[in-house]
Amino acid sequence: MCDGRYVGHLVDARRIQRLDLTGDGACTERPDALAVEEPLTLRVDSVVVTTTMRTPGHDLDLALGWLVAEGCVRHPGDVLTAIACDANTVDVSLGAGVAPPRPRLTMTSSACGVCGSDAVEDVLMRTSRPSADEVVTLDARVMATLPDALRAAQPAFGRTGVLHAAGLFTTAGEPVCVREDVGRHNAVDKVFGWALREDLLPASTYILQVSGRASFELTQKAVLAGVAALSAVSAPSTLAVDVARASGLVLTGFVRGSTMNVYSGGERVHLAPPT
Amino acid sequence: MCDGRYVGHLVDARRIQRLDLTGDGACTERPDALAVEEPLTLRVDSVVVTTTMRTPGHDLDLALGWLVAEGCVRHPGDVLTAIACDANTVDVSLGAGVAPPRPRLTMTSSACGVCGSDAVEDVLMRTSRPSADEVVTLDARVMATLPDALRAAQPAFGRTGVLHAAGLFTTAGEPVCVREDVGRHNAVDKVFGWALREDLLPASTYILQVSGRASFELTQKAVLAGVAALSAVSAPSTLAVDVARASGLVLTGFVRGSTMNVYSGGERVHLAPPT
Repeated sequence: MCDGRYVGHLVDARRIQRLDLTGDGACTERPDALAVEEPLTLRVDSVVVTTTMRTPGHDLDLALGWLVAEGCVRHPGDVLTAIACDANTVDVSLGAGVAPPRPRLTMTSSACGVCGSDAVEDVLMRTSRPSADEVVTLDARVMATLPDALRAAQPAFGRTGVLHAAGLFTTAGEPVCVREDVGRHNAVDKVFGWALREDLLPASTYILQVSGRASFELTQKAVLAGVAALSAVSAPSTLAVDVARASGLVLTGFVRGSTMNVYSGGERVHLAPPT
Repeated sequence: MCDGRYVGHLVDARRIQRLDLTGDGACTERPDALAVEEPLTLRVDSVVVTTTMRTPGHDLDLALGWLVAEGCVRHPGDVLTAIACDANTVDVSLGAGVAPPRPRLTMTSSACGVCGSDAVEDVLMRTSRPSADEVVTLDARVMATLPDALRAAQPAFGRTGVLHAAGLFTTAGEPVCVREDVGRHNAVDKVFGWALREDLLPASTYILQVSGRASFELTQKAVLAGVAALSAVSAPSTLAVDVARASGLVLTGFVRGSTMNVYSGGERVHLAPPT
């Protein structure tokens, strides 16, 4: 039923800056292992039914499992063939009498075979890099305070343990809008919807702090809203770093005690001695 | 531009069972505060462009922020009106000359106004409850070992800190398939795609353990694959609990030391004295 080919890898390296904020501070460059994120397009009987961002590997199982969750297939015989026709596309042929799923999602205008660089290109086409006078520099010691500041401003998290948060902060570290949601992308949308109403877009003098990880989707939203920086509590994916670098977005994360990682835009993150 | 109505609430209560595994064990019932999850449909100039699961509240900002991230609007004047026409639908009218976004996602067959119980109903229509001879009982002490067993089987997480995992376990706590991905739903799809190929569906004698939280989407996937139980490291949303209860799925979570929560199917989770 499937060709057993295992395509892809879970982890890839990007060169990052690691800041140590103790004393006068120090910055070292080093390679960092990041989770790979790339788009996968699923075609069923030649029709594109979904494109999803995923970590490559077990792509045929990903396609089949998606069809299970749609209620489309239940037994091995429901699937005639499942073939990885390139690194980013799986073709499934259903058995006779198996109804195809409804198409679910159209990520970009490409019909199929979208790869990570297409996804980055798609973001660049929908936005413009900040002009020279919009570019701000950021204080690493302020950036390091934002994860705690976000948690402090998150009223419901303590009660449920399940809500993601996103907060817009000034470059001095003051929160101006904090929102919570079960979906991390929704929390970010709620912040930027507020910013639109306040006529703050492009929000080129603000920092977006998010709980959890930085995916391509969240980074794309930060780029489209034009913030100076995206700061994540945890790590970004490869594609989040790639789109941040292509867009001129500062991307930081993994603030742990006195250390933090700068994945993109390091030249705009200053590490001054403590005042 | 917007009516400022704030609809919705972040947190709602469900009655759950709390198991204490110390000594002979104890089970107490109590209300638990859960993050609310409900669908929101966005219509732009009368066309449905997306339906997303979200935590109610700031719905107009959610709709506007989504349009910002699509590259559709940038200034307050780009939006003529944004109105919450019911608890689960936002209607946006764009200003003259503003191009509408491409529709992105069709969650269910309903055109608009989907509510949480519709979403649950939609799942029930695509599956069948397990028959009496498929129903297995589960050992709470085994369930409590699964989060650690999943982490132990997750090779890449330690290196990236960003990959979600999903694992299929026997009722004796043995892992049979563990997958990692930047997207939690992808990790689950990869597991159930494997199970389809192995002809294990409905997987009525298996437990799905996931890292992180249990959303409606993940719970729906567990129901469609027919597993006996879904166990989450962290908390479920209200709608995850609701769909688990309606489907006869055991839902557990928040294993912390010697305590765990049972959100659904408590009559099938046995707490025997330690052997």
